[in-house]
Amino acid sequence: MTSGGRGSRTPAGSAARTSAGRRPLTPGPGLERLSLNTATVRGRGLPEVVDACARAGVPWIAPWREQLVALPAARAGRAIADAGLRVSSLCRGGFFPAASADERRARIDDNLLAIDEAATLGSDVLVLVCGGVPNRDLEGARQMVADGIAAIEPHARACGVRLGIEPLHPMFAADRSVITTLGEANALAARLDSPAVGVIVDAYHVWWDPRLREEIAAAARHTLGFHVSDWIVPLPDVLDGRGMMGDGVIDLRGMRRQVDAAGYRGPIEVEIFNRALRDRPLEEVLATMAERYRETVADDAADPSRG
Amino acid sequence: MTSGGRGSRTPAGSAARTSAGRRPLTPGPGLERLSLNTATVRGRGLPEVVDACARAGVPWIAPWREQLVALPAARAGRAIADAGLRVSSLCRGGFFPAASADERRARIDDNLLAIDEAATLGSDVLVLVCGGVPNRDLEGARQMVADGIAAIEPHARACGVRLGIEPLHPMFAADRSVITTLGEANALAARLDSPAVGVIVDAYHVWWDPRLREEIAAAARHTLGFHVSDWIVPLPDVLDGRGMMGDGVIDLRGMRRQVDAAGYRGPIEVEIFNRALRDRPLEEVLATMAERYRETVADDAADPSRG
Repeated sequence: MTSGGRGSRTPAGSAARTSAGRRPLTPGPGLERLSLNTATVRGRGLPEVVDACARAGVPWIAPWREQLVALPAARAGRAIADAGLRVSSLCRGGFFPAASADERRARIDDNLLAIDEAATLGSDVLVLVCGGVPNRDLEGARQMVADGIAAIEPHARACGVRLGIEPLHPMFAADRSVITTLGEANALAARLDSPAVGVIVDAYHVWWDPRLREEIAAAARHTLGFHVSDWIVPLPDVLDGRGMMGDGVIDLRGMRRQVDAAGYRGPIEVEIFNRALRDRPLEEVLATMAERYRETVADDAADPSRG
Repeated sequence: MTSGGRGSRTPAGSAARTSAGRRPLTPGPGLERLSLNTATVRGRGLPEVVDACARAGVPWIAPWREQLVALPAARAGRAIADAGLRVSSLCRGGFFPAASADERRARIDDNLLAIDEAATLGSDVLVLVCGGVPNRDLEGARQMVADGIAAIEPHARACGVRLGIEPLHPMFAADRSVITTLGEANALAARLDSPAVGVIVDAYHVWWDPRLREEIAAAARHTLGFHVSDWIVPLPDVLDGRGMMGDGVIDLRGMRRQVDAAGYRGPIEVEIFNRALRDRPLEEVLATMAERYRETVADDAADPSRG
């Protein structure tokens, strides 16, 4: 559907351009694709987190828009590039369905702004969390999502930003995303048929799906991101209960291999919403994240598939 | 796949036989198909609940096996029949996957006992909650489910008890059911290909599924039960946060019409796991349940599709 995977991505925004020629960070051993989604360490300012990533050898970062209030996108992009990091994605646009046409229009406007922010930051991917169900009309909400993405796609394309439709776990269908399976995200991307529209595979959201293997293969070259965390038992909290990789039931390495086999070569974001984890020291979180990433996601030295 | 829907069901067990000729309860207006799943009022003894149903004009009841400890199945079945009620299902068998062969054998033995209890109680349906994931092996767990149902199917058939595979919401995939979609339950029923195996459609578990309409149609005449409750926002609790019909986002009447259109004519169980609801007086819970059932599930007088 789209051309090219994420292997040779070049940051599209102005911040990356102003930083052209700056020396990239040397990643920690085996951490070449590792990205910290800043939700994992929420509550800290972006400069502190960027600095910690650089010291930990984590070469990618995925900021959230809320962090661009304290540090506007252009400055944030420069700080990230100055540290030798690259932006894997900006979180997040979306939330298209609403009960009134005015509200839907306002949300589209906010998404256009998010695209500008992504471009300025130096992110070529904007993650879309598509939005929930107004008025018990699930099919109507899905149509509003399709209409919303269609409305912002030209601006995304013009800005060199790709829109990553992220299917969310069905437990978020009511209030966060009526797009709940990778199959549905793939179908939506196919329907929009634009090089600026793809999908995000987040292990936590999709691991349970009996059709996952086929849909990862079908996502192939329009996969714009791969996110990891773990599903722990019992689930501590609906919103804030994700686990560190290795603490739960998901076969992350198996899923990562499927995503790779389909052609994805881009960064792998660690996005863990978990209060107890956020309360730990930043350096400790990053060290654990890197260790678990090597143990449960990346291929180890004994793995013959390591290329 | 199987012969016959649920419209003309005859209770299979001995309790029903001993009660032959007893006069059935006259249902409340519009409540002909309404069944109380006793999880909704958990913590009460079965005799108290049976009595309350009879007074409220609720003609069906679905006990849980844990209630058959205090009141063994034969006596429970007589008490239900004496009150003029019928059993819509017994909850629950299942939980087939386990790390060791011994444990899997023990679970199959427990399911054989559950089939006996269903037959003795006078229930022709045993609900199966299939079980979670041991050792991060989701595909292996699904195979253990298929093997487990295949192992108990001959005994179910011999006892006149049908096994209802209930897909659970994907948020329960890790610890309660690796069968998460109606599509998967249908495929499993097709694979087992027995008149004693069908599926249960529970609105709370499947409402979010983009393929729901097709799968309800495909379930057609092997649908053995339809359960209702509601998905409320924000979700109060993973296990105990279901809502009363009408308090959430699910289009229950729309789903009920689809299930009916596919050929289901059996009872409609109200199964609401919610602590606050359980704490209310029993009569009040049943009155609210009946009122909401009429308002949001059954067809009202103004509905031209009412036959």
